[in-house]
Amino acid sequence: MKNKILSLILVLISLGAGYAQKGRMPFQDKSLRINERVEDLLPRMSLEEKVAQMRIFHANIGVGANEKGELELSDRVIEKLKLGIAGIKNPGEHISPLAAAKLNNELQKYIIKSNRWGIPALFVTESYNGVDAEGCTKFGRPITSAASFNPELVNRIWDVVGREARLRGMHMCHSPEADIVRDPRFGRMSEAFGEDTYLTTQMVINAIKGVQGNYEGLGNGTHIGAVAKHFAGYGQVLGGSNFAAVEISPRTLIDEIYPPFEAAVKEARTLGIMASHGDLNGIATHGNEELLTGVLRDQWGFDGYVVSDSNDIARLFYFMKVAESPQAAALMGLVAGIDVDLYAEDSYAYLPEMVKKDPSIEKMIDRSVRRVLRTKMILGLFDNPYIDIKEVEKEVRSTASLELAQQADLESIILLKNENNLLPLKRENQKIALLGPLVYQGTQAAFESVAGENVSFVADKGFELTDGDKGAPSLLPTDEKTIKKLVDVANESDMTILFLGGDEFTAKEAYFNNAVGDRATIEPVGAQDELVKRVKALGKPLIVVLKHRRTLAINTIAEQADAILDGWDLSEFGDSSAAKIIFGEVSPSGKSPVTIPRSIGQLPFHYSMKEINNKKGYLFLEDGPLFPFGYGLSYGNFEYSELQLSGMTMTPSTEITVSVQVTNTGKMKAKEVVQLYLKDEIGSVTRPDKELKGFEKIELDPGQSKSVTFTITPEMLKFTGPKMEKIWEAGDYTVMIGTSSKEGVSAQFRLEK
Amino acid sequence: MKNKILSLILVLISLGAGYAQKGRMPFQDKSLRINERVEDLLPRMSLEEKVAQMRIFHANIGVGANEKGELELSDRVIEKLKLGIAGIKNPGEHISPLAAAKLNNELQKYIIKSNRWGIPALFVTESYNGVDAEGCTKFGRPITSAASFNPELVNRIWDVVGREARLRGMHMCHSPEADIVRDPRFGRMSEAFGEDTYLTTQMVINAIKGVQGNYEGLGNGTHIGAVAKHFAGYGQVLGGSNFAAVEISPRTLIDEIYPPFEAAVKEARTLGIMASHGDLNGIATHGNEELLTGVLRDQWGFDGYVVSDSNDIARLFYFMKVAESPQAAALMGLVAGIDVDLYAEDSYAYLPEMVKKDPSIEKMIDRSVRRVLRTKMILGLFDNPYIDIKEVEKEVRSTASLELAQQADLESIILLKNENNLLPLKRENQKIALLGPLVYQGTQAAFESVAGENVSFVADKGFELTDGDKGAPSLLPTDEKTIKKLVDVANESDMTILFLGGDEFTAKEAYFNNAVGDRATIEPVGAQDELVKRVKALGKPLIVVLKHRRTLAINTIAEQADAILDGWDLSEFGDSSAAKIIFGEVSPSGKSPVTIPRSIGQLPFHYSMKEINNKKGYLFLEDGPLFPFGYGLSYGNFEYSELQLSGMTMTPSTEITVSVQVTNTGKMKAKEVVQLYLKDEIGSVTRPDKELKGFEKIELDPGQSKSVTFTITPEMLKFTGPKMEKIWEAGDYTVMIGTSSKEGVSAQFRLEK
Repeated sequence: MKNKILSLILVLISLGAGYAQKGRMPFQDKSLRINERVEDLLPRMSLEEKVAQMRIFHANIGVGANEKGELELSDRVIEKLKLGIAGIKNPGEHISPLAAAKLNNELQKYIIKSNRWGIPALFVTESYNGVDAEGCTKFGRPITSAASFNPELVNRIWDVVGREARLRGMHMCHSPEADIVRDPRFGRMSEAFGEDTYLTTQMVINAIKGVQGNYEGLGNGTHIGAVAKHFAGYGQVLGGSNFAAVEISPRTLIDEIYPPFEAAVKEARTLGIMASHGDLNGIATHGNEELLTGVLRDQWGFDGYVVSDSNDIARLFYFMKVAESPQAAALMGLVAGIDVDLYAEDSYAYLPEMVKKDPSIEKMIDRSVRRVLRTKMILGLFDNPYIDIKEVEKEVRSTASLELAQQADLESIILLKNENNLLPLKRENQKIALLGPLVYQGTQAAFESVAGENVSFVADKGFELTDGDKGAPSLLPTDEKTIKKLVDVANESDMTILFLGGDEFTAKEAYFNNAVGDRATIEPVGAQDELVKRVKALGKPLIVVLKHRRTLAINTIAEQADAILDGWDLSEFGDSSAAKIIFGEVSPSGKSPVTIPRSIGQLPFHYSMKEINNKKGYLFLEDGPLFPFGYGLSYGNFEYSELQLSGMTMTPSTEITVSVQVTNTGKMKAKEVVQLYLKDEIGSVTRPDKELKGFEKIELDPGQSKSVTFTITPEMLKFTGPKMEKIWEAGDYTVMIGTSSKEGVSAQFRLEK
Repeated sequence: MKNKILSLILVLISLGAGYAQKGRMPFQDKSLRINERVEDLLPRMSLEEKVAQMRIFHANIGVGANEKGELELSDRVIEKLKLGIAGIKNPGEHISPLAAAKLNNELQKYIIKSNRWGIPALFVTESYNGVDAEGCTKFGRPITSAASFNPELVNRIWDVVGREARLRGMHMCHSPEADIVRDPRFGRMSEAFGEDTYLTTQMVINAIKGVQGNYEGLGNGTHIGAVAKHFAGYGQVLGGSNFAAVEISPRTLIDEIYPPFEAAVKEARTLGIMASHGDLNGIATHGNEELLTGVLRDQWGFDGYVVSDSNDIARLFYFMKVAESPQAAALMGLVAGIDVDLYAEDSYAYLPEMVKKDPSIEKMIDRSVRRVLRTKMILGLFDNPYIDIKEVEKEVRSTASLELAQQADLESIILLKNENNLLPLKRENQKIALLGPLVYQGTQAAFESVAGENVSFVADKGFELTDGDKGAPSLLPTDEKTIKKLVDVANESDMTILFLGGDEFTAKEAYFNNAVGDRATIEPVGAQDELVKRVKALGKPLIVVLKHRRTLAINTIAEQADAILDGWDLSEFGDSSAAKIIFGEVSPSGKSPVTIPRSIGQLPFHYSMKEINNKKGYLFLEDGPLFPFGYGLSYGNFEYSELQLSGMTMTPSTEITVSVQVTNTGKMKAKEVVQLYLKDEIGSVTRPDKELKGFEKIELDPGQSKSVTFTITPEMLKFTGPKMEKIWEAGDYTVMIGTSSKEGVSAQFRLEK
């Protein structure tokens, strides 16, 4: 009641002061602290205006431009904007950066004018391979960049993403994914940074720092806010099936799934967190107060906003079936700590009427609105809501950004096999066939441009893998005639490069209805293995370039091909990048960010599983992975020697430094990812076989040697003990430094209490 | 110190009294209560004698018979028996029941004479398809009997097991398995009762009551004690890989994994529980005090003994690596509540020396010894330790028992497909080929005996699937010649019955070293699918009889065969039973105790998964199972109608009865399993798609109709809520009664608080 009277008084004051004087109200005073400004603004707002600050709608309901590029809004949007809005997803996504910047300036101007307090909106995008919009630099996917094992590179990629997005008028990015992806059946695995907690954590920190301009820069208007997702356990959906339940022990959750999120909050200061679809051990995530408030805010001190995944608050009712009504779903989300409702028309939309029945709810609404307003202030939107459109064309797709995209490729391509050092190829007189379903329109031109005049190419895609994105795509059959035609082309060439893997439809996000994206098998689909065998049978050198968005059990390729380049999903310069590696402009230096299994039947299968998981193999199947985590060959040749520890014992207050001599005994300058793994030999709970705890990417000339040093801290040895507390335990530890999770030099030390 | 003095005094007393007077000591007085007897005996025992009551050794270290059938013991065994022993595993397993009874009488006599207090030993066996020893009735495996959906039948089977084992001189049975088995990769899945918690619980209760003679009969000397295993989560080993870690959410553990064990304790009063290999969410099970003492004893009131799995206490050190030494492992097991150490020479063997260093340990030793002594008294071993050998040959393999074995088969065989009602076959003039790798030596004779003179048979195994049990068996290649020969035989016949599935080596327990038994694929191995297609291509009727010990994704068979009988692993009369079904002596009435997937990539896949797990399918794969849980056809035809509820609402203190009319509209007398499934429409945690909560097997003549009634109790609606307490919630529930988990008639009711 007190609140209502206060609110009424404030409304009267504001009406008295008149809109013309808005600019002089305290919340618009840059010199005040953000909290002061928020606390000034919040009480002025009506309940309906507050709830509007908790909702994001998608631009596809009626934000567009007419033929002259002028803003056009649907009646539905105009109605919505009268109360203000938390944000709009993807305004201008299908137009050029400059047009988008202009449109979004107009849109923001309209929004500010339309709502009583002139509250600007957040324009929201996503990023999987650069800004998810027309005309921006297209980088490789997150899992591709993870293969670079180069966090600084990831930082620079996301710095470009942040800059290019802001110049389109965007303010928030519903990325990066901080999920640990270990199930190749899951259609979204390429959107995250792979199977490993430590590697993912480093990449997530750098992605967020990059896109946010290191947080401190957020008010400058050059970068955008990050939203780390999907909190928590989304990568662990049962059967790799989108929207499925998640079953994960509390200890694994804390030790393996939480760390990238915790680092996103504490170290990278992400502005936002998105909750995960589905449930976590039975509790629907969007209704999980212990997770979204207990862990995220109380334990980690997160002070940004939590946004739902698309429609997921409403889905607590009609999909998760944990709420008895849409209103109950809204309350559940609100109580749990979801501040912003993405898209749902039948969820937070009900909050005003719900407050009328139960005024106590308004406190939780205020809590969320504060977080949203605060975010807008951090981003400087109250003070400088517009883009300087002069900058747009100078900055977006700058030469430096495009070069960076290719540089990232060159550090991310993984050389899985190189029989008899077939690679790099010489630029000598030869004819090379570029064949297979992953040959693109520009593939031949890219190879010609890199290889120079002596090498001639012929390219033939041959066949498509699927019938494309018609809901659930079908596999296309491949007839003998098609295969034979490709084999004939190969036969007329000196050598073949096969482009294999999966097209964009064989691994993608599964939405509703027929949009299926997960798979029950992980073999290359269609006639690809057949093609490999037939081309190999010609007896000529065979190189395979892999393009894919999920881990594939490439048994036949691994057996038949002389050389394999694994590119995952590269940048817009991907084929050129592959050509540069193949012709030796650069030595490959990518390392596999996942364990590559021999069979889907080996799942779950990641290198850091407990030692006891590796005790028994399977009947009729060779043990171990096809290629281990961290694996990747080079045109250089790296020898590891002289492993030295600063001491054989450490205590909770001391550290050990461990150094190793790495020598490039090969004939080519090359980069190598030196990897540090630790293993707790005995623990009070069953312990991982080993865990990546550090890595450093170095470059060595032929014959050059370098000492690489890591510091082992007691913190690195901590884990969640029997009583669910983080502990370290006295005992023996093995340290291994090497070129992959399987190969290196090792020694033991002891932690003493 | 006090204990030691007391112990010394008692030793002096006993020496004074002399062995000759043992018989008069209170612990040997039948008229006293068991607890009084135990409390009399325990203080008399030396520490070493106590620890001996905590160890079981295997007879293969030196318990045997010479040519005359007289007891022969190795020096090692003689030495061990001086202190007494908790038990001996499998004495006389490879000799006839009568010889075993004689030997075990001799052995027991020797043991009683050898130790100061005349404490008898437990002779321990196991049961997977009857008593695990020479010369006993061979029943089908547990998963086979689960398919009968007939708990009373299971009770009778295990009653025979108990009787036959006791007559061999056995006292305890390290069975049944109360594990929920949902991963067909796991080599041991046939040892348990399938994927469903309710079905498994009913079968476990009846197995234990059967083998124990309903507990009350245990002192009569006619039955033996049960040991339910493997507590808990053993069926959930990651990747279906023996000894691997177990990851399972606490809620699933309580609602889906614990119930068969809880019922084993509370309802069936199992004498023993065996702990599970491996870990449970990071805590090694053999060191899990919360589980083995907290849940098992404090929550459920278990008062029997807990035995380790083979060597698993020692393995806490050298395998699980959660203990720093063998002694630490022993202490960990002791504290957790493992009373008996199975086999390990380097674990509880250390207890006496450990007590010398830390006398406080002895209390826990006393706790365990009490449980063992109590068990022996319950079994009447102090009063009547010997077998009446006159009974052995009368009882073991009695006609009734052998008939029961076949009757169980006839109720367990599942008819998965019966195109155009091919089955049952008429006993008319025709030639039938019995072909394929699962044809046994006696198959032809069995079929001839059932089919009579008009039908002629030709049998040809054709090929073996594997090279047998040489550590890890290899698949044997099958050449075209072999296939062609079988196809030719089929071609010369009117019809073919193919015997397919897996041999005993394609699914078995994985031990150490090379004994691998788990698999990464679940397709029928070898040339079986090829054989099916080739025989089918002849255009003649094709029947497939499946024999296997793991769920197989039989896509090709399901597509090609006209009829499929799924027998899992039947009794010694299996082929005769299959013939009886095929020739219509009995209508099949088995129902699948597992969900049969289309692909290993669908795992985990059981019908009671949460509804949200079924929302999305996989690309390029038909949705749903190949055959659902509870599925099985009949030669009758059952129609379900008139579903009636006694009310539309229930409260926590009322029940609803639900009845359905089942009519056999077919032409043959047949049994049907009427299945009751409940679904909680909305829950505060994500809920199963549906759950089996009752079933009844009925028999109907052609045209006969019967009303089947189930009572729905509030207890059935309980689940573990958000705060980890068992709750029921007001709301709508769907009840379905039907012929499988997928097909039935349904209605809704409401639970109101």
